[in-house]
Amino acid sequence: MNKNINIAVVGLGQIGNYLYNELNIKKKDIENKTGKKIQIVAISAKNKNKKRRFKVNKKKFYENPFEIFKKEKIDILFECIGLSDGISKKIVETALKNKINVITPNKSLIAKHGDYLAKLAEQNNVCLEFEASVAGGIPVLRTIKEGLATNHISKVYGILNGTTNYILSDMENSNEPFEKVLRKAQRLGYAEPGNPKLDLNGFDAFAKVKILSALAFNCKISKEKCIMEGIQNIELKDIKIANQLGLRIKLLGISEIIDNKLFETVHPCLVSKNTYIGNVNGVMNAVIIEGNPVGQSVMQGEGAGPGPTSSSLLSDLFSIMRGNKKFPFGISSKKRKHIRVFNNNKYSNSLYLRFEVKDKQGVLSTITNRLSRYKISVKRIIQTPDKKSKKATIVIITHKTSEINVKNCLLIFKKNKNILKFPTLIRLYN
Amino acid sequence: MNKNINIAVVGLGQIGNYLYNELNIKKKDIENKTGKKIQIVAISAKNKNKKRRFKVNKKKFYENPFEIFKKEKIDILFECIGLSDGISKKIVETALKNKINVITPNKSLIAKHGDYLAKLAEQNNVCLEFEASVAGGIPVLRTIKEGLATNHISKVYGILNGTTNYILSDMENSNEPFEKVLRKAQRLGYAEPGNPKLDLNGFDAFAKVKILSALAFNCKISKEKCIMEGIQNIELKDIKIANQLGLRIKLLGISEIIDNKLFETVHPCLVSKNTYIGNVNGVMNAVIIEGNPVGQSVMQGEGAGPGPTSSSLLSDLFSIMRGNKKFPFGISSKKRKHIRVFNNNKYSNSLYLRFEVKDKQGVLSTITNRLSRYKISVKRIIQTPDKKSKKATIVIITHKTSEINVKNCLLIFKKNKNILKFPTLIRLYN
Repeated sequence: MNKNINIAVVGLGQIGNYLYNELNIKKKDIENKTGKKIQIVAISAKNKNKKRRFKVNKKKFYENPFEIFKKEKIDILFECIGLSDGISKKIVETALKNKINVITPNKSLIAKHGDYLAKLAEQNNVCLEFEASVAGGIPVLRTIKEGLATNHISKVYGILNGTTNYILSDMENSNEPFEKVLRKAQRLGYAEPGNPKLDLNGFDAFAKVKILSALAFNCKISKEKCIMEGIQNIELKDIKIANQLGLRIKLLGISEIIDNKLFETVHPCLVSKNTYIGNVNGVMNAVIIEGNPVGQSVMQGEGAGPGPTSSSLLSDLFSIMRGNKKFPFGISSKKRKHIRVFNNNKYSNSLYLRFEVKDKQGVLSTITNRLSRYKISVKRIIQTPDKKSKKATIVIITHKTSEINVKNCLLIFKKNKNILKFPTLIRLYN
Repeated sequence: MNKNINIAVVGLGQIGNYLYNELNIKKKDIENKTGKKIQIVAISAKNKNKKRRFKVNKKKFYENPFEIFKKEKIDILFECIGLSDGISKKIVETALKNKINVITPNKSLIAKHGDYLAKLAEQNNVCLEFEASVAGGIPVLRTIKEGLATNHISKVYGILNGTTNYILSDMENSNEPFEKVLRKAQRLGYAEPGNPKLDLNGFDAFAKVKILSALAFNCKISKEKCIMEGIQNIELKDIKIANQLGLRIKLLGISEIIDNKLFETVHPCLVSKNTYIGNVNGVMNAVIIEGNPVGQSVMQGEGAGPGPTSSSLLSDLFSIMRGNKKFPFGISSKKRKHIRVFNNNKYSNSLYLRFEVKDKQGVLSTITNRLSRYKISVKRIIQTPDKKSKKATIVIITHKTSEINVKNCLLIFKKNKNILKFPTLIRLYN
């Protein structure tokens, strides 16, 4: 790598904007630590005239990012557009083919096309770095690839989405319902103002799980979705009942090897308030890695926002500038294996089931009979009648049972006139 | 670096022994990931015939480790003897001068001679790696050097000694006194069986603080000790009172920049039970890094024992084998600056003071008068009389006050006949 490093930043949204500023502020420090000079020679965004933190140098500005490849000699390109396909993919592809190192915080791109892009980077002998794609400022990918490189990892899990964690924490603290807290999160910039769906339905966390799996288990990115559930169906009622039971609801992303098969899930979990993970609140993210011989390693930090994201983007820059050439997923694409996916029907948990029913005789026994026919044994029942509306809430905590069993068992409640809505299911994390 | 890497392991105590085994188990995996072959060509320990996990290959065994340099071509040497000077220093020195990369878990050596040895490594263009010297299996040094490389770090602190954390946790859980719990810790292998002093008096944690400071603030290792206190004076009584106050006692190592000066301390702290650090129990270590723009990063994991230590030693090996050449302290020795030390007289905290007194009239007012003369204002007093023995325990929680003020104020109680022993002081962590 030359002594002078030319940089392009493509995409000047919240992240790109902050990054550009940070690059200017930290320029000297980075040069000091790496012994190389950096120069931002090109920036690109849709709108040249939008108000930004900095004055746009029009000579460096490209409305069409593909022009950059023709006009400038770039060493490192930051992709900060954020799409899973389209122009994001095309830019990264073109850069790698032109032997330009790429750094991106784009989890959906990596989760979808990471295998292909990693291979492309390797063929062209450049780096593709994406530390910021998982858990914001927590350098968890680097830790798996390097700090824990020689461990045998059996499981990686954690709170990978700050938006949902903020909403769940705030519902508990403020006693306010989902919709209201979501609007508050949007006002505070913790949730997308337009369409927060990808955070809420678990999609965002699932992309991160896929990236973590690939690194932890040296495997290709899986194309399957074992279980992906978000927090859209969690009501304040569930949070209050959990609270009484000494539990807290967390949206966990889990990746583990069970019977030599890969099992990836994102779903809300009930965890004990006394556990570590039960106390990671607000917008914080946390990742727990179980490895041998290291034991359990925990990393916690701010999971989102331009500050933590920039920290990770710059650590990638730093790594590339120090000449630390790496395979994007820790080992060569050729050596990354396919791991078959665990059949999620066999996934087994204790369950929290909440039924909203008409307060009539026989309803409880209908439910318990049905459960017992499927050999789902009950650990605890809490029935709370609402005399006024002649309704009742029945919460049942079951012993461990398999997914397929529950799915079949609960089916009937879709069309029972005494059961007012399909039961809410939350898995207990053991 | 050649394709064939020759390794020497010097010192076959608990760590060296485990490492040697791990190297053999992980050989294939490391070769797979790095594309290089490893070969342990020399091992050395005092006693060739001691019982070990593995059969000693007598051809590779050296009773005098310095013979290795004459007879073998070594690429990487593991120093696992563990002294702060003497043979440990001599071995590392000789290896570096012979252009051999060195990996060591030896915190006392690095805390004492790290500056000199780092310079030697740089002059000879080889690596000196010591990830295992701080916080066992937690890759915290690598995280500061790389993952958070471009952050401006203002503070690093945490629980850096597993032995003392185990003892404090177990005293609380078992309700047993210090001496008894210490013996239990020794039986379980959590405390040195012979002389646990260096863990208990804060020396071990202080060495780690020094290494963390040098990395976090890009400075030379400080030769001064601001405050170094261990847990030897903590009694079960203090733990119980803390418990009533919703607090927990933790031995914290703290390194921060105050008024552009370096402040390093190790001392017991009272922390709230609701905080993260208040819930890191048992032999766990935790390090909290405050940086800009990343915010607060937390890393937790097993801080000691041969498994976690080997994980870090092998991550160093992996890094060197991948050709990841680094300055031992992140930046060149020439650029590491001296930072002046903060005057600890100005260090200011709320305090917990426990007085054991004769249960006589006027004793409390003697104490409070003395405190008020030094403008130490009282936030809370808890007096517990022991009628039978005509004694009383007085616990005072003060508002913030400076170290020098307290030191002067408490002096008088050394020779007061109504005060049965010099008061126990524990600082509240804010």
